[in-house]
Amino acid sequence: MPYPEEAQGFMIDGPANWTSFQKRSFPLKPFGESDVDVKVEACGICGSDVHTASGGWGPMHFPLCCGHEIVGTAIRIGPKVTNIKQGQRVGVGAQVYSCGECKQCKNNNETYCPNIIIDTYGSKWPDTGIISQGGYSSHVRAHEHWVFPIPEKLDTNVVAPMLCAGITAFSPLVRNGAGPGKKVGIVGMGGIGHLGIMFAKALGAETWAISRTRAKEADARKLGADGFIATSEEGWDQQHRFSFDLIVNCANSSRNFDLARYLSMMDVHGRWVSVGLPEEEGQIIKAQNLIDNGVLIGASHLGSRKEMLQMLDLAAEKNLGTWVETIDINEENLKEAMLRMKKGDVHYRFTLTGFDEAFP
Amino acid sequence: MPYPEEAQGFMIDGPANWTSFQKRSFPLKPFGESDVDVKVEACGICGSDVHTASGGWGPMHFPLCCGHEIVGTAIRIGPKVTNIKQGQRVGVGAQVYSCGECKQCKNNNETYCPNIIIDTYGSKWPDTGIISQGGYSSHVRAHEHWVFPIPEKLDTNVVAPMLCAGITAFSPLVRNGAGPGKKVGIVGMGGIGHLGIMFAKALGAETWAISRTRAKEADARKLGADGFIATSEEGWDQQHRFSFDLIVNCANSSRNFDLARYLSMMDVHGRWVSVGLPEEEGQIIKAQNLIDNGVLIGASHLGSRKEMLQMLDLAAEKNLGTWVETIDINEENLKEAMLRMKKGDVHYRFTLTGFDEAFP
Repeated sequence: MPYPEEAQGFMIDGPANWTSFQKRSFPLKPFGESDVDVKVEACGICGSDVHTASGGWGPMHFPLCCGHEIVGTAIRIGPKVTNIKQGQRVGVGAQVYSCGECKQCKNNNETYCPNIIIDTYGSKWPDTGIISQGGYSSHVRAHEHWVFPIPEKLDTNVVAPMLCAGITAFSPLVRNGAGPGKKVGIVGMGGIGHLGIMFAKALGAETWAISRTRAKEADARKLGADGFIATSEEGWDQQHRFSFDLIVNCANSSRNFDLARYLSMMDVHGRWVSVGLPEEEGQIIKAQNLIDNGVLIGASHLGSRKEMLQMLDLAAEKNLGTWVETIDINEENLKEAMLRMKKGDVHYRFTLTGFDEAFP
Repeated sequence: MPYPEEAQGFMIDGPANWTSFQKRSFPLKPFGESDVDVKVEACGICGSDVHTASGGWGPMHFPLCCGHEIVGTAIRIGPKVTNIKQGQRVGVGAQVYSCGECKQCKNNNETYCPNIIIDTYGSKWPDTGIISQGGYSSHVRAHEHWVFPIPEKLDTNVVAPMLCAGITAFSPLVRNGAGPGKKVGIVGMGGIGHLGIMFAKALGAETWAISRTRAKEADARKLGADGFIATSEEGWDQQHRFSFDLIVNCANSSRNFDLARYLSMMDVHGRWVSVGLPEEEGQIIKAQNLIDNGVLIGASHLGSRKEMLQMLDLAAEKNLGTWVETIDINEENLKEAMLRMKKGDVHYRFTLTGFDEAFP
C-alpha cells in the first residue's frame, strides 16, 4: 500500500502508567481531499504532553500518542490541497482542524472556533469516532490549513518546538502590540517562556524576563532580555509599578502566585495574558485588584495560520531558534524525558529525533 | 466672611449608625490657587455612599459626609483657574484631585494616577490632614480639573447622578470601542447600569440589557436596549455564544454569579469590564474559562475630564437624562433613601434637593 491508513506511535494507556510507552499501531482518520500526510522527522515534547498523559487536565481518550510540535515531510497531498507541495518539509502544531466556515475561522481566530476544534491528539473526529493521535509516531494526518511550510533556513530539530511553544508565545505578543516603545514581560522561563523572550525582543519590545530567582538570568540575557526581575527579591514589583504594557504569563502553575503584585506592575489598561493552563483550581480575582490601573486579564490559545507563518519568517529572518536538547525516540528515552519535563529539568525543550530508526 | 472656610453637611459617625445623619460643620481644605468652591444645589446618592457608610468597603475616616454626584454653583474661583467662571453651574464627581504631573495624569488617565488620588469624600489631604467631605453638604471645594461646566440643556437634578454613575458607565464604553457595529451588554440595571444602557445606545452600539428576571425589561427598552437577557431563564447564554464585543458589568454583588457563563457569550478577545466593587471576596478565575474565546477581564475606575465633558455633551445633544427620584435633604429622608438604596428599591437614582432650605 503506497499510503498509510494507519500509523505507528509510542502510546500510553493512562495516567496510572503515564511514563510507560508502548509502540503500537493506530488508525488514521479517513484521508480527506484537503488532508496532508506527514512523515514525522522530529517532535518537541510539550508541557501539554505531560499534563495530558499524567491526568492533570482530567480525563482523556486512552491509549494515547502525544506530541504536537511536529516537523516532517509531506508525503501525500489531497487533491484539493493548495498550501503544501508533496515532498515539502512541513510543520504541524497542536490543532489539526476547525470548521473553517464561521466568523472566527474566517477572521484569523481559527484556534477559537466555537464549532469544532480537533486537537492534534486526543480529540474525536466526528463521524468516524477515530481519536486523533500525535507526533510521537511515524505519521500524522492533518487538514492543510494546519500544515505549515518550514523556511529553508530553519533547522528541523530547532524549529519543531516553535509549532506549539513558539506560536503560543508569539500570538499574544503580536495580538497585544508587542513592539518598539512597549515594555513587555515574560513570566516563567520554560519552553514557552524562553521563546517568548526571544520573540518579544525580535519584535522590538523592551523585554523583561520575570522568574523566581536569578538562576536563569544569564540565559535570559542571551535570549535577548533587556531586564530581569526575580520575584524572590524584596520590592521586585515596586520599581516597576504602572509600567508594563503587556505581560505574557507562561508559568504553568498558579501555586503561591501573588497575582495582585504582578498586576500592580501593569500600566493603565495594560494586559496580563496567560498561556499556561495550570492544573490548580484557579485564582481569586477581586475587582479591587484590577481597578487601580484598569488592567485587563486574559488568556490566549495557540495562534492563527497567519501568525504561524509570520513567526516562522521572523525566526528565519533573525536566526531565532529554540534551545533544544535532542533525544532519540524510544520507550526509555520518552520515560526519562517526561520525568525530567515534570521536574522542569530541561533548558528549554526536548526534541525527539531518530524517527527513521524507531519506525523503519 | 465672604467665602466659607468651613461647610455644613449631614454626617454619620460610623458603620454602627450608618443611617443616623447629623447636621454638622466641618473644615474645608485651605483654598488653593486652582480651587473652586461649589455651593451645592443637588447631589445624587451613589451606591458607593452606602458601601462606605455601612462599612462594606472597610475602615474609613469618620465622621463622614458622603455624596459625590454634585451639581451646584461656582461661587469662588482661585486666581489660576481657567476652566470655570464664577457663577457658572458646575458638577463635581467622585474624585477631586490627582498629581496632575505623571504620565497617567497627562494621558487622560488621571483617575488611575499612581501618586495621589483624593476622593471627593473620605480621603486625607496631604499636609493639612483634613479629610475630604462630600456633597450632602452646603459646599464642596475641588481643584478646577475636577469641576465640570454643565451644558445649559441639562436639568440639575437629572444630570447630578451622571457625575459618578454616568461617567462610571461611559468611560469603559468609549475606552472599549462601544459604537456602531459592536454588540454591547450591560449587566445590572441599577443606577450605573441604566445609564450604561442609555449611553451604549447613544454611542451607536447594539445594546443588550442583562438582568436576572424580566421585571425591568420594559424600562430597559425605554432606555434604548435593543435586546434583553434574563439570566434566570434556561439557556440564556447559549444563544449569545461568541457574540458580545463588550460587556460592562455594573452588578454590585458577585454572589451566585456564574462568571463562566457570562464569559462564554463574549466574542474572541471581547472584553468583560466590571465597574462595581462588590463587598465579597472576589471570584475564582481559571485560565480555562478565558481560553475558549481569549476574553479579557478588566475593571474601570470613573473616567477622565475629557470623557466627562464628552458625556455631558452627548447627554445634551441626545436629551439623555438619569431616571431620578428627587428627595429633599434632611436627616429623615437620608435615612430612608439609604435604606431603600441598600435594598435596590429605587428606579434608578435618588437626587437630593432642597439644599437652600437645609443650609440657609
